Amino acid sequence: MISYNPKDWLTFIFRFHKAETLRRLFPLILVIAAYAAFICFLELHYFPFTKNNAAIRNIPQMHSLLGFVISLLLVFRTNTAYDRWWEGRKLWGALVNNSRNLAIKINSFLPHDDYDSRHFFHVLIPRFAFELRAHLMSENTRLALDTKPHPEIPDFNRNKHIPIQVASLMINKTNLLYKQEKITGDQLIVLNAELQSFMDICGACERIKNTPIPYSYSAFIKKFIFFYIMTLPFGYAISLSYLCIPVIAFIFYVMASLEIIAEEIEDPFGSDANDLPMQQIAVNIQKHIGEILG
Amino acid sequence: MISYNPKDWLTFIFRFHKAETLRRLFPLILVIAAYAAFICFLELHYFPFTKNNAAIRNIPQMHSLLGFVISLLLVFRTNTAYDRWWEGRKLWGALVNNSRNLAIKINSFLPHDDYDSRHFFHVLIPRFAFELRAHLMSENTRLALDTKPHPEIPDFNRNKHIPIQVASLMINKTNLLYKQEKITGDQLIVLNAELQSFMDICGACERIKNTPIPYSYSAFIKKFIFFYIMTLPFGYAISLSYLCIPVIAFIFYVMASLEIIAEEIEDPFGSDANDLPMQQIAVNIQKHIGEILG
Amino acid sequence: MISYNPKDWLTFIFRFHKAETLRRLFPLILVIAAYAAFICFLELHYFPFTKNNAAIRNIPQMHSLLGFVISLLLVFRTNTAYDRWWEGRKLWGALVNNSRNLAIKINSFLPHDDYDSRHFFHVLIPRFAFELRAHLMSENTRLALDTKPHPEIPDFNRNKHIPIQVASLMINKTNLLYKQEKITGDQLIVLNAELQSFMDICGACERIKNTPIPYSYSAFIKKFIFFYIMTLPFGYAISLSYLCIPVIAFIFYVMASLEIIAEEIEDPFGSDANDLPMQQIAVNIQKHIGEILG
Amino acid sequence: MISYNPKDWLTFIFRFHKAETLRRLFPLILVIAAYAAFICFLELHYFPFTKNNAAIRNIPQMHSLLGFVISLLLVFRTNTAYDRWWEGRKLWGALVNNSRNLAIKINSFLPHDDYDSRHFFHVLIPRFAFELRAHLMSENTRLALDTKPHPEIPDFNRNKHIPIQVASLMINKTNLLYKQEKITGDQLIVLNAELQSFMDICGACERIKNTPIPYSYSAFIKKFIFFYIMTLPFGYAISLSYLCIPVIAFIFYVMASLEIIAEEIEDPFGSDANDLPMQQIAVNIQKHIGEILG
Amino acid sequence: MISYNPKDWLTFIFRFHKAETLRRLFPLILVIAAYAAFICFLELHYFPFTKNNAAIRNIPQMHSLLGFVISLLLVFRTNTAYDRWWEGRKLWGALVNNSRNLAIKINSFLPHDDYDSRHFFHVLIPRFAFELRAHLMSENTRLALDTKPHPEIPDFNRNKHIPIQVASLMINKTNLLYKQEKITGDQLIVLNAELQSFMDICGACERIKNTPIPYSYSAFIKKFIFFYIMTLPFGYAISLSYLCIPVIAFIFYVMASLEIIAEEIEDPFGSDANDLPMQQIAVNIQKHIGEILG
Repeated sequence: MISYNPKDWLTFIFRFHKAETLRRLFPLILVIAAYAAFICFLELHYFPFTKNNAAIRNIPQMHSLLGFVISLLLVFRTNTAYDRWWEGRKLWGALVNNSRNLAIKINSFLPHDDYDSRHFFHVLIPRFAFELRAHLMSENTRLALDTKPHPEIPDFNRNKHIPIQVASLMINKTNLLYKQEKITGDQLIVLNAELQSFMDICGACERIKNTPIPYSYSAFIKKFIFFYIMTLPFGYAISLSYLCIPVIAFIFYVMASLEIIAEEIEDPFGSDANDLPMQQIAVNIQKHIGEILG
Repeated sequence: MISYNPKDWLTFIFRFHKAETLRRLFPLILVIAAYAAFICFLELHYFPFTKNNAAIRNIPQMHSLLGFVISLLLVFRTNTAYDRWWEGRKLWGALVNNSRNLAIKINSFLPHDDYDSRHFFHVLIPRFAFELRAHLMSENTRLALDTKPHPEIPDFNRNKHIPIQVASLMINKTNLLYKQEKITGDQLIVLNAELQSFMDICGACERIKNTPIPYSYSAFIKKFIFFYIMTLPFGYAISLSYLCIPVIAFIFYVMASLEIIAEEIEDPFGSDANDLPMQQIAVNIQKHIGEILG
Repeated sequence: MISYNPKDWLTFIFRFHKAETLRRLFPLILVIAAYAAFICFLELHYFPFTKNNAAIRNIPQMHSLLGFVISLLLVFRTNTAYDRWWEGRKLWGALVNNSRNLAIKINSFLPHDDYDSRHFFHVLIPRFAFELRAHLMSENTRLALDTKPHPEIPDFNRNKHIPIQVASLMINKTNLLYKQEKITGDQLIVLNAELQSFMDICGACERIKNTPIPYSYSAFIKKFIFFYIMTLPFGYAISLSYLCIPVIAFIFYVMASLEIIAEEIEDPFGSDANDLPMQQIAVNIQKHIGEILG
Repeated sequence: MISYNPKDWLTFIFRFHKAETLRRLFPLILVIAAYAAFICFLELHYFPFTKNNAAIRNIPQMHSLLGFVISLLLVFRTNTAYDRWWEGRKLWGALVNNSRNLAIKINSFLPHDDYDSRHFFHVLIPRFAFELRAHLMSENTRLALDTKPHPEIPDFNRNKHIPIQVASLMINKTNLLYKQEKITGDQLIVLNAELQSFMDICGACERIKNTPIPYSYSAFIKKFIFFYIMTLPFGYAISLSYLCIPVIAFIFYVMASLEIIAEEIEDPFGSDANDLPMQQIAVNIQKHIGEILG
Repeated sequence: MISYNPKDWLTFIFRFHKAETLRRLFPLILVIAAYAAFICFLELHYFPFTKNNAAIRNIPQMHSLLGFVISLLLVFRTNTAYDRWWEGRKLWGALVNNSRNLAIKINSFLPHDDYDSRHFFHVLIPRFAFELRAHLMSENTRLALDTKPHPEIPDFNRNKHIPIQVASLMINKTNLLYKQEKITGDQLIVLNAELQSFMDICGACERIKNTPIPYSYSAFIKKFIFFYIMTLPFGYAISLSYLCIPVIAFIFYVMASLEIIAEEIEDPFGSDANDLPMQQIAVNIQKHIGEILG
């Protein structure tokens, strides 16, 4: 993730950060510009009759009619992607809260001299965050709901689920403390919310990771943008002449950017520039657990 | 469900997956194109007076005025369908969390040597997922709120509700363990959240399955699209000449696609290409329960 | 509620179900068409100067400017109405879950031979659903927050609140079982969530029933549609000539439909065609409680 | 609050309720109309060159470009105001549920002959609703987060918080019953949810009351509408001649109505016509508590 | 935060509060106006051929096509920023509820003569609010997820987390009271919700503080506005002549205002004019806790 000062406009407008779509789309924008130039050239010089052809001149009617639909769709796309990204952030925020609350309670409930149990949770609570991060970044997790075989991934679906094991260890330990009467039944109930939410967070993250928006939408939006941009030069070549080249390039930049940013943030658990800083969050958890239980 | 890489644009644009609307709408697009060609031919060759008739030339005014409404409606449709699909996914995600947490707790709470009880939950927890899937895919469930008789479905409304029975068995067993003092009252309270959420998830899935969006909306949107497309050629035949054929076909493709994708995903518990991978999720639950209780 | 197959387009487009707005709006559409015809006739034949009057010709500028606002408002209206309808459905779904979970737990917690208590809940749990339905459909409930006197409703505000009484009976009974030590304190806590949610559901349904969207919005949207449609013929009579009659009728059909469907579904607890199938849900609850406790 | 029948269109269109914006905006609409007439008169008679000035004729380009933004902003405003109003209604609905559930439980848990405690809750539960209403309607509450001194309000910030005192009394009483062993620890836990939600509801209502949407938005939207309407006549005077007077008046009516309704309902705890019927809800609570505990 | 009366239009329209965008954007608006004047002057006097160049005259086609997208994006931006601001307000509202409920319960549960414990909570509960405010306003918190080193901040990442320490003290104290049998296990369970929500609120505030919307969106929206405004004068200079100067300045004012307000409120925990009045809320908490426990 990139920390930034949103009020610094000059930097935003004139710097081209590697995370930005303008930089990544640049080659494609050139291709589109060349395509528009080619169509424009043909229409203006080789098919001069098009200039007075009302039908071709009126093609942009379609583009403004569909302009609403495509704008609304792109914003729908942006909204759902952002919601997924923000839900992912909330889940990791819940993991932070959870880890800290569990540590505070454990520290308070345990007998003063039970250093072993304290050490146990001191190690395992942050461990869960690190293991969850590793789990979410593996291809196994992303493809967990795929029905196709994946011979290219060794041990696909065969290796054990590490976060389950870490959470199990913590629940087992707490139950053991209860059986040993180091904590009472009331305290067990009080600890339960935190203990079970580890796996709830894990499951919710897996859901975001392994279920992108339905294939049909993704395919439809991309085809729609493609057809839309490809047909733009025919009408604009007449009304805008060679000016249609930068105009179409700019329209393409806007639409493709929205789709590309959405693609990137709809799976917030990866290593893209805008993805969630899971490593940093896990380090912070470790630091705070250390302050509490250390 | 189809797992895919959203960043692979070329595949999206040039492949026509069987789940895609372009493939399924193709025959209908041809019909619309033929209809547009027919109207266009009539206007241009048999009713030449239309060419100079300002009234007919101005019909597209209506289409752009209503263009907002229809675009917003289609996006409303898309939003609600997606929300239902995503709510369905969340429910099955909750089922995963629930099953795993219950298994972890049961494993931790039971005496080491109580193999029978462990085996009981090892079998029944994943069983619930499989039975819920079967339950949601049956026509009985879809029509559970229909007031019309359904003689075509044998034993409609007569066979028992399997998920209730599986959940009952688990709750009975847990209560028995409590009465046998194999688990304490505090542990019973801690297990309660998971035990009752099985039927909560089942009921919420049934709600999505047996209650589509109100009939009036569904009927209205379809009639609206139909009238809208049917009246497009009259004005466009004049302004776009024969070019109106691909233009109208494309507009139809866009609008019908949105409606068709929405229809497909608003009931996420079926066997359409975009439906939720319930079978795969149930298999994963089984695998993880095996790791925990096995 | 009407169960239907959303994928059957032909039926939707060519059948006119009694729940549909087209059928109910038909007389009004004819009136609007006659009005448009009258204005059009006057402008074209009696006030020919209007034809060359740029001002009148430009009136549709206002309509396209306000076209955004009215479209967005209608979609806002649609969204809020649908949210209320779906919230109503969720509440009745929660009632289903609640009833079934309570029955399963009661069946499991009660001593095997306590047939009386089982029978008590067997009768009262579904009874709550039936009484809630009757309560929600009565005019007393709809007008519960009205400050005006209602002499036309006998015993308004005087008869007792039946769902409260049913819920009280169940809570009293459960507490009695606890005092008689037929269920333990831990089990009482476990039953509490279901027992208190009966009245939570009842209160939430009452809220939807007795609080429509603010009067100002309802009045404003209706006045807006009325003025908008009434002023349409003046400009369109010139640009569209007699074609403005079907065009205005269609625009009216679209806008009025959205408002009418919203009116119907914003109160989902009635006997309109799109209202929730409360009777059928209550019957299903009865059936399932019978399976569990029978 | 006004109870009404949303299906009665004629009343809505031809009656001018005092709660309606048309009535309240009427003087302002006349001012705007006069202003438009004045600009129109100047342009048409004193500055005839404007008639052929393409620049002035093209000003409406700006208005249609900004027409999207202003429409979307007004709908954003409408949405947030409605959400606050509906959240307020939900909170008072929760208060109803809470009061009734607490009364039912108290009635069930208390020994039959403890008339004093029954009477205590019979008086205090509805009292909370009445006191909360009085608290929310006082200026002290609205200005609770203001940092400016308010010498015009006597005892500002000095008088005690009444709802806290009522809630405290109930919690103290319940705890006393627990210490006196009139209710058990399990019952205390079961009562806790209702007891603590009184103050949760109070706090959430205070939040809505003392935090309007950010000042910047409110100021920006009003300035935007003002500039937008003020510049409309310059271009419309040419294209619409004197017809621009009713047209601009109508556009102003639409935009100002949306802003004014939003202003009114964003604080649902007052005495505007559309505000929540807190008095009536409190009376209903009193009636129901009487039925339960009476 | 600024308390204001939303119904006082005149003040809003004619006063320029220091929190307003018009005042802060003024220098930039002048720059844009000068730029537009310069382009306009060049086109009209030095490049007169542009006047009859259809291509340049048609550039605004692009601006109206992209007008949808940019409007929708700005409203998306406004929505997400407002949601974050309102979520922040809700969290501080929850802190108020939480603090008051905890104080009421503590006061009720503690033995009458335990002045020390009462004093302990009297001091520490409001302390949490003040410390949370200080924590949220420090640069350390804003940059907690940044991976870059920050040598300019002394002791970055080295000083302890104060809110954790305050919350720990309260949880430790409560647990001590439980071990000393001053409060029972049932009361411990009842206090748990409030005790653990302190850190939940803290974590959620930190999430809003340290995670702005993804960098890509922020950069894309700013670049989009910049290109959009910069290209406006080319076409408008022809259609609007020198009138394009105020028109473009106004369009810029609208778009930039939306972005600037969003920037300001998306981090509601700072010292901007629209930020949340954390200091005042904390003072109110202190006052109310004093009333309860004093």
